[in-house]
Amino acid sequence: MSFRKLSMEEMGRLEADENRDSEKFPFVFVLDNIRSLSNVGSVFRTADALGAEGICLCGFTGQPPHREIEKTALGATESVNWVHFDSLQDCLIDLRNKGFQLVALEQTTGSTLLQNFIPSGPLAIVLGNEITGVSEEALQMVDAVIEIPQFGMKHSLNVAVSAGIVAWHSVRAWLAKA
Amino acid sequence: MSFRKLSMEEMGRLEADENRDSEKFPFVFVLDNIRSLSNVGSVFRTADALGAEGICLCGFTGQPPHREIEKTALGATESVNWVHFDSLQDCLIDLRNKGFQLVALEQTTGSTLLQNFIPSGPLAIVLGNEITGVSEEALQMVDAVIEIPQFGMKHSLNVAVSAGIVAWHSVRAWLAKA
Repeated sequence: MSFRKLSMEEMGRLEADENRDSEKFPFVFVLDNIRSLSNVGSVFRTADALGAEGICLCGFTGQPPHREIEKTALGATESVNWVHFDSLQDCLIDLRNKGFQLVALEQTTGSTLLQNFIPSGPLAIVLGNEITGVSEEALQMVDAVIEIPQFGMKHSLNVAVSAGIVAWHSVRAWLAKA
Repeated sequence: MSFRKLSMEEMGRLEADENRDSEKFPFVFVLDNIRSLSNVGSVFRTADALGAEGICLCGFTGQPPHREIEKTALGATESVNWVHFDSLQDCLIDLRNKGFQLVALEQTTGSTLLQNFIPSGPLAIVLGNEITGVSEEALQMVDAVIEIPQFGMKHSLNVAVSAGIVAWHSVRAWLAKA
C-alpha cells in the first residue's frame, strides 16, 4: 500500500465565503475569560476544521481581528461565525433559549466522563480560563459537566487540545448516526 | 444538579516519579521535524494526561530541557518518557521491531478516516512538520494513514490538537474494551 498526499484541489477546499453556508455540526464553543490569544486562534482553526456552528467569546477573551489570534487561526476567523458577550450568563441564557444543551468541560463532582457522554441535540461546549477553569457561575448554569479522564501527573490539558477532543468525540457520534 | 470542582487531592494527582511507572495506554507519539517548541510542549502535556507510553522526537524536533517547551509542557517533560532519533527511519524500524503499528496522520490517497479507525495492538502515531506534513519517507514506511475528516475551509488542524484527537479516539476504544 502506498500513500500519496492529496492536493488542495483534491481536498475540495472551500472558499471562506462558501464555508459560512456549508454544512455544519450542531455545536458551538463558548470561551469564557480565555487569557491566551494563541488558544483562541487555535480554537477558531479547530472550529473551522470540525464544522462548528460558531464560537462565543465571553468576558475578557480576545476577539478578532487580532494579530496574535491570526497566528494560530490561520484564516479561520474569516470562515467561522463568532459573537462576543460581555457576560457569560447572557451568553448561556441565549444559547439555552436557542435549544443548546450547555456542557462545561471541567473536573467536578457529578461530572460525566467523556467516554460515557453521548451528545443528543445542539451542544454548547463551555471552556474556562487556563488557570482558574470554568467559573462557579457557569457551573451553576450548565446542564452537565464533561470530564476528560486523565491518567498522568498533571491532571490538566491545554484548553485548545481539550476543545478539539470534545468536539471530535461529538462529531464522531453524529457521523455514526448519519 | 450542582457541580463542585475537585481538589488536587481528590484528583489523586500522582507524583512525577510515581507516574513513570503508572498504568499507560499502548501508544507513543512520533514527532518528525516539528518546528514549534510550543507544539512539542503541548504534545508532552497531552501524552501525560492521556497515559502515553512515550514520545519519540525525530530529526530537528526540539528536545527537553528547553524553556520554550516547558512553557506549554508545564512539567510533563519530567513525567513522560521520551527518546531522540536523528533519523525517523531508525525510529520507525525500532518501533516496528517492538511490535508497534505505525500510523501517520495525514491527508493522502488510501487513508482511513478517523471514525473508521479501530486500534488493535500498540500504536505509534506519526505527526509531521507543521508546513510540509508527514514526510514521503515516512509515508512509505507506515502501515496505515489516518485522516481526521475536515469540513471547513482550511483543511488543516494544529498538530498538537490533532495529536490529542487521535490519542483520545484510541484511548476511548481501549477503555471500551477494558
